[in-house]
Amino acid sequence: MSGISRTFASDNWAGIHPAVLSAIASVNGGHAPAYGADPVTTEAIALIKERFGDDAEVFFAFNGTGANVVGLQSLLRPFEAVICAETAHIHVDECGAPERLLGSKLVTVATPDGKLTPGLAQGALRGVGDEHHVQPRVVSITQSTEVGTCYRIEEITALGDWAHDNGMFLHVDGARLANAAATLGLDIGAFGSDLGIDVLSFGGTKNGAMGAESVISFLPPGDSPLKFIRKQSMQLASKMRFVAAQYIALLTDDLWLTNATHANAMAQRLARGAAGVDGVDVVYAVEANGVFASLPSEATLALQQDYPFYVWDDETGVVRWMASFDTTEDDVDRFVERLAEVMGAETA
Amino acid sequence: MSGISRTFASDNWAGIHPAVLSAIASVNGGHAPAYGADPVTTEAIALIKERFGDDAEVFFAFNGTGANVVGLQSLLRPFEAVICAETAHIHVDECGAPERLLGSKLVTVATPDGKLTPGLAQGALRGVGDEHHVQPRVVSITQSTEVGTCYRIEEITALGDWAHDNGMFLHVDGARLANAAATLGLDIGAFGSDLGIDVLSFGGTKNGAMGAESVISFLPPGDSPLKFIRKQSMQLASKMRFVAAQYIALLTDDLWLTNATHANAMAQRLARGAAGVDGVDVVYAVEANGVFASLPSEATLALQQDYPFYVWDDETGVVRWMASFDTTEDDVDRFVERLAEVMGAETA
Amino acid sequence: MSGISRTFASDNWAGIHPAVLSAIASVNGGHAPAYGADPVTTEAIALIKERFGDDAEVFFAFNGTGANVVGLQSLLRPFEAVICAETAHIHVDECGAPERLLGSKLVTVATPDGKLTPGLAQGALRGVGDEHHVQPRVVSITQSTEVGTCYRIEEITALGDWAHDNGMFLHVDGARLANAAATLGLDIGAFGSDLGIDVLSFGGTKNGAMGAESVISFLPPGDSPLKFIRKQSMQLASKMRFVAAQYIALLTDDLWLTNATHANAMAQRLARGAAGVDGVDVVYAVEANGVFASLPSEATLALQQDYPFYVWDDETGVVRWMASFDTTEDDVDRFVERLAEVMGAETA
Amino acid sequence: MSGISRTFASDNWAGIHPAVLSAIASVNGGHAPAYGADPVTTEAIALIKERFGDDAEVFFAFNGTGANVVGLQSLLRPFEAVICAETAHIHVDECGAPERLLGSKLVTVATPDGKLTPGLAQGALRGVGDEHHVQPRVVSITQSTEVGTCYRIEEITALGDWAHDNGMFLHVDGARLANAAATLGLDIGAFGSDLGIDVLSFGGTKNGAMGAESVISFLPPGDSPLKFIRKQSMQLASKMRFVAAQYIALLTDDLWLTNATHANAMAQRLARGAAGVDGVDVVYAVEANGVFASLPSEATLALQQDYPFYVWDDETGVVRWMASFDTTEDDVDRFVERLAEVMGAETA
Repeated sequence: MSGISRTFASDNWAGIHPAVLSAIASVNGGHAPAYGADPVTTEAIALIKERFGDDAEVFFAFNGTGANVVGLQSLLRPFEAVICAETAHIHVDECGAPERLLGSKLVTVATPDGKLTPGLAQGALRGVGDEHHVQPRVVSITQSTEVGTCYRIEEITALGDWAHDNGMFLHVDGARLANAAATLGLDIGAFGSDLGIDVLSFGGTKNGAMGAESVISFLPPGDSPLKFIRKQSMQLASKMRFVAAQYIALLTDDLWLTNATHANAMAQRLARGAAGVDGVDVVYAVEANGVFASLPSEATLALQQDYPFYVWDDETGVVRWMASFDTTEDDVDRFVERLAEVMGAETA
Repeated sequence: MSGISRTFASDNWAGIHPAVLSAIASVNGGHAPAYGADPVTTEAIALIKERFGDDAEVFFAFNGTGANVVGLQSLLRPFEAVICAETAHIHVDECGAPERLLGSKLVTVATPDGKLTPGLAQGALRGVGDEHHVQPRVVSITQSTEVGTCYRIEEITALGDWAHDNGMFLHVDGARLANAAATLGLDIGAFGSDLGIDVLSFGGTKNGAMGAESVISFLPPGDSPLKFIRKQSMQLASKMRFVAAQYIALLTDDLWLTNATHANAMAQRLARGAAGVDGVDVVYAVEANGVFASLPSEATLALQQDYPFYVWDDETGVVRWMASFDTTEDDVDRFVERLAEVMGAETA
Repeated sequence: MSGISRTFASDNWAGIHPAVLSAIASVNGGHAPAYGADPVTTEAIALIKERFGDDAEVFFAFNGTGANVVGLQSLLRPFEAVICAETAHIHVDECGAPERLLGSKLVTVATPDGKLTPGLAQGALRGVGDEHHVQPRVVSITQSTEVGTCYRIEEITALGDWAHDNGMFLHVDGARLANAAATLGLDIGAFGSDLGIDVLSFGGTKNGAMGAESVISFLPPGDSPLKFIRKQSMQLASKMRFVAAQYIALLTDDLWLTNATHANAMAQRLARGAAGVDGVDVVYAVEANGVFASLPSEATLALQQDYPFYVWDDETGVVRWMASFDTTEDDVDRFVERLAEVMGAETA
Repeated sequence: MSGISRTFASDNWAGIHPAVLSAIASVNGGHAPAYGADPVTTEAIALIKERFGDDAEVFFAFNGTGANVVGLQSLLRPFEAVICAETAHIHVDECGAPERLLGSKLVTVATPDGKLTPGLAQGALRGVGDEHHVQPRVVSITQSTEVGTCYRIEEITALGDWAHDNGMFLHVDGARLANAAATLGLDIGAFGSDLGIDVLSFGGTKNGAMGAESVISFLPPGDSPLKFIRKQSMQLASKMRFVAAQYIALLTDDLWLTNATHANAMAQRLARGAAGVDGVDVVYAVEANGVFASLPSEATLALQQDYPFYVWDDETGVVRWMASFDTTEDDVDRFVERLAEVMGAETA
């Protein structure tokens, strides 16, 4: 693979959207207070609050793991636990950062489609009040999920209600929140306290930023510990304006939506194309920018010669293909063509 | 203060050097593997190894706290302690991140000039072998120091020898390593295993990067845990090429040296100017890009009306002025002029 | 329930074996060095080494959680993980102490009978070398298991071989090790490095002590961090001789074996009795001092009026009955009689 | 030294007071619920509440480090700090357990006599509200102090007021609380919320117990996390009644007071005797059961031939002699006699 081709490996293999890069450059004149006390950061936070509400508290972070761990840390003491899907990024892909930094156990639940429900979460609500057991305190969901599905509004509300009824909080890992909003036809700011969300990771990187994540807290502000948690968790940028500028770009003229809508459309196109190839099954609903497909492992290996991508599940051979803001129709069509070829060779 | 003036508040109030921004833009074509498996990162690491030696292991990180904590974590178990100056950034300015993430105690030592010596460190070497006491395992120094002084080569070597003789490691927080190298007339790569350094934070941000830090380990590679520690410590960038590109820019045509030399020269100019003002004393040797001065607190307050900067020590009223890669002679001269005015008003 | 009846709730509802109490009293003359530097501790350690080998390192601890966490901590860095059965005490009953104190993830495996096998562990060995995933480093088993079964010698050896072949360690939670040794006809000291065990928790409390646990390490001593880990983990007793004396009592005249053999026999008697009651099924092999039975929940509730005991599994209604060193045949027979009564009422 | 002589090395070199051992034996009939749900524990807690007030919450723990860390953990988040004397046991003698388990920094203050004051604490109250710095949240004092001095009631009240005025808590490490109460002529229960104490470690071990410590919280109960913190911190005893019984013994017929009064008197006798020896200076007020004296190091070495004790300060040569509940007048007189001998040889 040449370093400049577009692939379907991951939406973080894509680069920086030109408008984001321009925004970074545009705030590069002169000096500005460090650590977020600058006007660019102020403006970015104001733009986020316009959408998420004035009571939202906004904290930029470096990466998704950072945003998740910082946000969760504001909700948890170490003897308290997080209920999450067993496919959750915080459980699978963060090298144990949550356990390490929260001190807390993740209580995982098998799901058919990457989505928790109150019923599934209820099954994980054990040992409450018993000092021998960790105390469930947070339900954490991913929107859109790690397998490319989307929670509907009422599904999130139901989880928020269930959490609050049980003295718990609802946390949302929104590394791909924009994709979900685009699918559901909602503004990004819909994912706030109205749905019962307490703390949200609102991701920018996979949406076209260079590296910009944020934690949004909907808890009553009062004595929020988040600024201290972020700093102690090593997620406070010194030249913060360059993180903030990325959010300004994404939130200006709804670039976030344009990027997400496009990536989603490319995933749809890819899913349609792949489903039309004999022997290929799309295994999860395509509700964001990811396509999960099952195909013979020989075909996977052959296809990976030209296109790097990840096998999602070693046992079933299900693979993951991700579309990005910069994926073109032609990229998709050529990929499907190649897929058809390797499958043809396979079934020949 | 307008958002675009240049101040002497901090070298991280400065923006991005144009060459660094260009480098980011120049690697923005197409897709690249995430998390550092891309050719840009490979190239940046190769450039660093050219200077620090082939056995160096290089890990990019987001910020200085992250680089320090990740590096120290590779050297320490929680019952082991770090000996550092009581002015050390890891002790004073990281919101307890080292204690939180290492689990370790920092054993601090008062110093006259921000610099540890074997003699000073020896005084902190207590309780060895006694389970009731933390076990000193790392000596951590800052180069250049938080008070603008520089360790000489032989001073570092002596500390490395002392550390190794006592079964300990030598860690260097090099957030401003470039400034020290420039002062000492050394290549940046001089600060490696030849001096007895085991793990180094080699900073880019204060030298003109947007946000780029690195951990360089000189330990025998073998079974280095650093890649896991970095990921678990939430310091692994997904779109790594944009961090790596910043180092490529800094290391190309010795931009790091140009930037550091210039900032140091501006600090010298500022120190000379300030020292010429009646009632102002420069209290530490100016061996990098910072000037520490004592002046009456009324003068400080008056000067801060026009120029934001930090009071370094509330008790003594010593203040800190930092020069940056983009500080101009004119910036300095106008600042000194204003300083003379407020001091004149003071002494009038 | 009166405070002095004997129940089947737990083997730690039993008191102190008289010989253990005598041993405590017998070492109570005069002063002795604190923290284990006393002759009683020296003697107790020597007795343990007589059985476990001269290379064993022995550290007394306060409780089972403490012994497990201290032992595991000597084997793990935070990004490394423990593979254990999903019934493991460290996973279920320690309020998240392992995650909190190790920083590590527990990777759990479903088992039919509380016992891991190399095959089951292999299924949990994922993501090796990949920084996004925790790195399995320890296999932890419980002997005898939480469900009253016992690993055979060759089963432990196979796990040790598998662990070592994969660059991992084998940890044994032996809170009820004596019961397993009794069942298998082995000396307690058989559970050492010959079986591939690297670190062992050898419990005294459930075997008749007042409160005495130990960590035994079979790793090459050299630079063992265990004494520091124990102290920092708050498991170092000041008046250590009174912990050590308990082990002396248990190891003198094979009291450990007498106690365990008796408790096991009482469990067998109980299992036979219970199995003879219509509608009661003993669901796990009775290979130690616990009996796990399924019976209607109404019968459980009725029986609990007279005999407190725990429901092991809320979903299946399986209950746990534990025999102790002081359980009498009469205790068992009356319990079975009452069980038959409540079941008769149930089926009447 | 024979294993049964009485020394002046430490009050935890002493054994178990006979009444404590009897109490343990007396609750050893039959079974009792584990983990504190037994009538003995209920009784012990009731006895403590009789003295400390009905709103006190009481949690037994294994050792002093455990009690301190568990108590502090209920007051602190990791980015919050503890202000303590630089002689504090939590800083000096717990192998970094507080940093490790709280994640928090200890901010230490030099004191003339082991005692903090509001003025001294004020000097450590820096960086409040600034995310770069840890946030002082707890003042922790030791009563009686590590150097044998005692806080007066009004001194504690002043610290409590200062703490609360600054949004902080007051924690008391009372490993030797009984000695202070005896000196001040107060009931042990005087050290509660009336003095502004929020959380107290009330120690039993050094007062004649075998191993029994407790955490007493005076915070509004509501949603106290202490039971979970204790369990997760590995300080929950399974056979709790045998810890509780020790407190019953100490609180019956004011045994705690008898023991403390006696130990204090022996320290006074020793101090008087030592002060009468030429060349020996008693360097701290003797207000509890410890005597700190300065004498030539040759004399120290000579005396240690017969009597083990600790050098408190390597630099000044100050040594520590501790009296215990079982120290006799004869023990003291013979020790002073020997001291006079070695000093005589010294000055001869």
